[in-house]
Amino acid sequence: MNALTGRAVGFIGLGLMGQGMTRNLLRAGARLLVNDLDPATVDALVAEGAIGRETPAAIAGESGTVILMVTDTRAAESVLLGQGGVLEGLRPDALVIDMGTTAATATRRFAERVRAAGGDYVDAPVSGGMVGARDGTLSIMAGGAEAALDRARPVLDVLGSRLTHVGPVGAGQVAKAANQIIVGLTIGAVAEGLTLARRAGVDPARVREAVMGGFADSRVLELHGKRMIENDFEPGAHCTVQQKDLSQALELARELDQELPATRLCLELYDRLIAEGHGKLDHAALIKVLDKG
Amino acid sequence: MNALTGRAVGFIGLGLMGQGMTRNLLRAGARLLVNDLDPATVDALVAEGAIGRETPAAIAGESGTVILMVTDTRAAESVLLGQGGVLEGLRPDALVIDMGTTAATATRRFAERVRAAGGDYVDAPVSGGMVGARDGTLSIMAGGAEAALDRARPVLDVLGSRLTHVGPVGAGQVAKAANQIIVGLTIGAVAEGLTLARRAGVDPARVREAVMGGFADSRVLELHGKRMIENDFEPGAHCTVQQKDLSQALELARELDQELPATRLCLELYDRLIAEGHGKLDHAALIKVLDKG
Repeated sequence: MNALTGRAVGFIGLGLMGQGMTRNLLRAGARLLVNDLDPATVDALVAEGAIGRETPAAIAGESGTVILMVTDTRAAESVLLGQGGVLEGLRPDALVIDMGTTAATATRRFAERVRAAGGDYVDAPVSGGMVGARDGTLSIMAGGAEAALDRARPVLDVLGSRLTHVGPVGAGQVAKAANQIIVGLTIGAVAEGLTLARRAGVDPARVREAVMGGFADSRVLELHGKRMIENDFEPGAHCTVQQKDLSQALELARELDQELPATRLCLELYDRLIAEGHGKLDHAALIKVLDKG
Repeated sequence: MNALTGRAVGFIGLGLMGQGMTRNLLRAGARLLVNDLDPATVDALVAEGAIGRETPAAIAGESGTVILMVTDTRAAESVLLGQGGVLEGLRPDALVIDMGTTAATATRRFAERVRAAGGDYVDAPVSGGMVGARDGTLSIMAGGAEAALDRARPVLDVLGSRLTHVGPVGAGQVAKAANQIIVGLTIGAVAEGLTLARRAGVDPARVREAVMGGFADSRVLELHGKRMIENDFEPGAHCTVQQKDLSQALELARELDQELPATRLCLELYDRLIAEGHGKLDHAALIKVLDKG
């Protein structure tokens, strides 16, 4: 009996990512219980075959696997440990999979609480954005015991096209922090390179083409570089999400007494961009802070 | 009559890059004249079939095409315009191709001088490092008139596997500046991500594997990320070259009154690394400045 074909799958958090992911689980034949703070998103999923429940505790009471996909560490803590939270209803032997981007330190604490209640815990944050969520092509970075991960695999295989077991509980979240640092700073790199070209009177599209295929080549140059050139900042991933993730990565670095100067600068640039009212644009919009109008 | 099969090709600057490039030209059957400040490197190439000449002017006097591959803008200026320089010997209708990384503003000035002497000028800086130079797989970013570039193509096709005509004279150097910004800052991004992982007790090799294939994927993560994990900083491209290129990019930005905060920070980090005595390591060694020992 695995996580997909056995008892119901509970899914908490139906934001932009969660909506795509739950639809893939329904398509794969899961008996799916859903919960979100916003009743309208629950109703939309119920109309497509999911079963709505009022609280995370109610979800947990009927599910063999409970997936969390909520906004941030505080939301995850509330959904897990708060009143009406998952732990209040958790069945013995249940598997909790946190697919959101949660602080690594908090993750280890959550896992202990779930294990103390008889459950298994896997942190499995993702990269790939709304398109990856919709198409089931997310990259998944997993932390947890081998046996727990084996239980999670059938569900994760529906949601992603690439799953890496990084290490014990928390390791998935550490990898995600590294991922967000690399993505955010690479966006900054491409933004400065293309801005210099434009200001020097050279077509940034030709420059992007010229440097692709060399050492400057990256998914960010390909995708976010294109957005910058076309001035198309329809998200994708919001600047505010990148801000939250960089901020969380820096908090982990601070706990470890590790300086990350470029990450700190990149966060400051996102702070500035968001203060100028651009928070809901795609994170490629970072190039706007370089504009002198 | 094209640049390869017509009159001799002159090549000035037999450093780590130039040695690989001249060998490819010899292999392709060019009648090759070479010059370098260091007579030993000239002798080595002469032993392989090249013809040595004492000065850039002497090279220019016998060549239909003159390629420059010298250290920096000052060296290019000296080789072109100085005593015994290319302009003193330049044949009418000769083609000068500068494949080094030269300031864009100086490039436009050099091109004017060459044109005033009856020649054509193409700036064609490269990406791909010593391996690309050796294997003839450089990415070439070219600036110049269409007709001049057409003359240069047979030579450039021997030296590189990817040629992009970015725009008029100087546009190749602007693209190279953008390239170096993107490469340097992406190295910094990967360095901070992998350092955070290591300090958090998670295997950086597993993290690299986990984030490859997602938005964090890049040539730098692939190549320089691997070097960082294996602590292998055999160059590749020296830190001092990256320092020079970032410094030159920032000078262009300053001329254009354009702030590039992440580039400025990245240069400061390379400055610090080089002050600690690591200048001759590969530029992936930037990760060392994050070490607390």
